[in-house]
Amino acid sequence: MKLEEKIVENLKYAYVPYSHVQVSACAIDENGKEYYGVNCENPAYPSGLCAERSALFSAPVQGATVGTFKEIHVTSNMTEIIYPCAGCLQVISTFLKPDGLVYLYKKDLSEKRVYKVTDLLPHMVRDEDIKKF
Amino acid sequence: MKLEEKIVENLKYAYVPYSHVQVSACAIDENGKEYYGVNCENPAYPSGLCAERSALFSAPVQGATVGTFKEIHVTSNMTEIIYPCAGCLQVISTFLKPDGLVYLYKKDLSEKRVYKVTDLLPHMVRDEDIKKF
Amino acid sequence: MKLEEKIVENLKYAYVPYSHVQVSACAIDENGKEYYGVNCENPAYPSGLCAERSALFSAPVQGATVGTFKEIHVTSNMTEIIYPCAGCLQVISTFLKPDGLVYLYKKDLSEKRVYKVTDLLPHMVRDEDIKKF
Amino acid sequence: MKLEEKIVENLKYAYVPYSHVQVSACAIDENGKEYYGVNCENPAYPSGLCAERSALFSAPVQGATVGTFKEIHVTSNMTEIIYPCAGCLQVISTFLKPDGLVYLYKKDLSEKRVYKVTDLLPHMVRDEDIKKF
Repeated sequence: MKLEEKIVENLKYAYVPYSHVQVSACAIDENGKEYYGVNCENPAYPSGLCAERSALFSAPVQGATVGTFKEIHVTSNMTEIIYPCAGCLQVISTFLKPDGLVYLYKKDLSEKRVYKVTDLLPHMVRDEDIKKF
Repeated sequence: MKLEEKIVENLKYAYVPYSHVQVSACAIDENGKEYYGVNCENPAYPSGLCAERSALFSAPVQGATVGTFKEIHVTSNMTEIIYPCAGCLQVISTFLKPDGLVYLYKKDLSEKRVYKVTDLLPHMVRDEDIKKF
Repeated sequence: MKLEEKIVENLKYAYVPYSHVQVSACAIDENGKEYYGVNCENPAYPSGLCAERSALFSAPVQGATVGTFKEIHVTSNMTEIIYPCAGCLQVISTFLKPDGLVYLYKKDLSEKRVYKVTDLLPHMVRDEDIKKF
Repeated sequence: MKLEEKIVENLKYAYVPYSHVQVSACAIDENGKEYYGVNCENPAYPSGLCAERSALFSAPVQGATVGTFKEIHVTSNMTEIIYPCAGCLQVISTFLKPDGLVYLYKKDLSEKRVYKVTDLLPHMVRDEDIKKF
């Protein structure tokens, strides 16, 4: 199964008793290894986590290196293509290289959009900004 | 005292025992009312909050209307101008109008940069995207 | 107006287009100064903030000292008394003294419960645990 | 390798350029399947994620059922046993059954403590509280 078909299939695993908005993502590190995630809500709404971050935060324990990811792919059960929230963009910009790519799909795969991370977040707060302090 | 002098003065109130990066912000609603905030860290790092969000989340209880803010002003004790993290941009994009303005200052006020919210976050997830679902 | 009447009145300021659960809080520092907050949701659910944290994070910029608070009071528009989520307890345990008190009210003020922070969170992660590392 | 040896070994994967506090966790669902995670910090501190949540949020996309988990195991590189922050307890209380168990280890495995979730968080906000609203 192709990656984009896999993330569509994974939508059913989203835990969304409140919004019913299912989101599914796959992040890819520099070695081409894939990390999947879905969104997971919480009765205390701020304690839930989006699909993009669920995918990314699952990677370090598998040996992936933060800052070297090359792609993340996202789809949802909404009619229109959904963009990553900025909360996720903060983490995406930490895991991906600045020229990393964000692929967004309609769930019927009839439309795909591709952005560089810097297209979605032109001014990033990155480790090198804070570490030098 | 002018607003930009006030946010510089407020830097001393930041609670930053871990990063020592002090950030101070002032959000302004459609009526010109000002809401101040500083960053506040937590021993469990993800439980801290940035200055921009501390300012914004203090506003609703004072009667401010989410979605109608026109400006947010930010400074820090770092040498270079600091941009709002994307976690804050998500909340800024909810509180401010799409053409709202983000003012960033060096702490000696020798430099100021101004952006529209859409400059910093070209593709937003907004209430109208999710409410219609 | 008494504090508990004030937090009930503030419920109307909660920004809750998704859950419709209104929560209102008031934190009190060692000097008896009061800091109010309501919950504020976000289309990206994890980017919202609870009432307790909105109240607490509004305090440092007003000169309050983290770690010295003596009380927090909370009510909601739900039928039963609502407990602070644990995400809030992390921040409450940082702002309040260990023997600080958490007051919970029904919105008609027909019932009140009082707990020590340590009743609600017996094993805390506090600054002194992490700073010594 | 035993589970507790595995989480100690995983400590090296924690991404902690700021605190240098490495934490590693393993959550176990009702079928005995194991989900691992480490903490991962971010230059915008509130955008990082703890080990416990990294482990838990990696589970739904693998087919795990939220609310049915029976155990979570945690260790760190600190001298003393570290307790889950309350931000994690909110998510642990959503994923685990109320009588689920939290195992905490020193990294040399010389000491182990076991708690029920309700020992660590006596008053929980759970899905059934909010869904009925």
